[in-house]
Amino acid sequence: MRQIFDAELKQVGDDLAEMSRLVEQAIVKAGTALLTADIELAQQVVAQDQAIDELERDLDERCVLLLAQQQPVATDLRIVVSALRISSSLERMGDLARHIAQVARGRYPRHAVTGDLQATFAQMNDAAVRVARRVTTLLTTRDLTVAHNIERDDDLLDTLHQDTFAALLGTGWTGTPQETVDVTLLGRYYERFGDHGESVARRMLYLVTGAFEEARP
Amino acid sequence: MRQIFDAELKQVGDDLAEMSRLVEQAIVKAGTALLTADIELAQQVVAQDQAIDELERDLDERCVLLLAQQQPVATDLRIVVSALRISSSLERMGDLARHIAQVARGRYPRHAVTGDLQATFAQMNDAAVRVARRVTTLLTTRDLTVAHNIERDDDLLDTLHQDTFAALLGTGWTGTPQETVDVTLLGRYYERFGDHGESVARRMLYLVTGAFEEARP
Repeated sequence: MRQIFDAELKQVGDDLAEMSRLVEQAIVKAGTALLTADIELAQQVVAQDQAIDELERDLDERCVLLLAQQQPVATDLRIVVSALRISSSLERMGDLARHIAQVARGRYPRHAVTGDLQATFAQMNDAAVRVARRVTTLLTTRDLTVAHNIERDDDLLDTLHQDTFAALLGTGWTGTPQETVDVTLLGRYYERFGDHGESVARRMLYLVTGAFEEARP
Repeated sequence: MRQIFDAELKQVGDDLAEMSRLVEQAIVKAGTALLTADIELAQQVVAQDQAIDELERDLDERCVLLLAQQQPVATDLRIVVSALRISSSLERMGDLARHIAQVARGRYPRHAVTGDLQATFAQMNDAAVRVARRVTTLLTTRDLTVAHNIERDDDLLDTLHQDTFAALLGTGWTGTPQETVDVTLLGRYYERFGDHGESVARRMLYLVTGAFEEARP
């Protein structure tokens, strides 16, 4: 019984890592699509989001079956419940990468972001990619120092998000309403991407240390 | 054992209904704050969101304890797992109402939304309030006809969200960048509020009928 459970639990961990790798690819491609107006890449992100959604459904079913058939307690139970929540965050991160790609696709052949804001979004995308990579590392190694680096990049994303508002609301802004809308939504997508990454980090901290850190203000 | 379980399960249901009632109050107040530039109401929504967050944490702990101590199977297990997910949606709906209130508060004493868009947001808020009320009804009565009405209002919110973009990107738009940013974010918040309501409706359908409806495109 224990062997079956361990094998099932390993599969859950492998599925989460696989979801996270797909999210990583999605955000890398979405950012490149956005910053270089590459419609081909944008399409790929949109198409590949389905695979993430399907993995989430499989993983959730697997977790519910595990709860029903193996009746885990203590740490095992904590792992299964955390997996349910982490898969939900990863699914949302995939959606957000897709939303970014959809903005890039909608503006093609123009760039959705122009001028000084390109540098800001390049930084946001770098931070988001680091978050995604570290989430994969965290899920595969459980190295908690990585969790703290994720929090730092989430903070950076919040700061850069504020920078986008400062640009939009400053006297120098001459963008069209479409550009204002796009920058507003893109900023929000990246900020939420960071939030979900940070949420995975907190769940993993809880899982490994048993102490659930309160959501930071 | 069964009696304890039933009592615990009833408490979970009561907590979900309580969360939902708080979300309902939050969106009613947030909408009024937005449409009448009422800073007092806006503050209340921001302050009261904590109560929703705390209920979510309590409810999650209760569910995990239930899983550990009672080892539910079949329908009981489905109820507990669904409760975990529904509480997460309700918590997000509370956050979104808070975000709406924060926009209203940030623009006070001015109105965040002016002109023709006021009518659009009044409609969006009416739809969001109906979604929240019906989620409460659904959680307390399990009447599935309510679930279908929630889906209809979610569709209406999507349509109205598109209307806001049409207004922002039409030739008649003369708003400032701040107004463009606010309308973009508010539209997104209402649209997501509907999505989460619809997600609760689908989970309840799953719970009552055992068939999980695929996320609609």
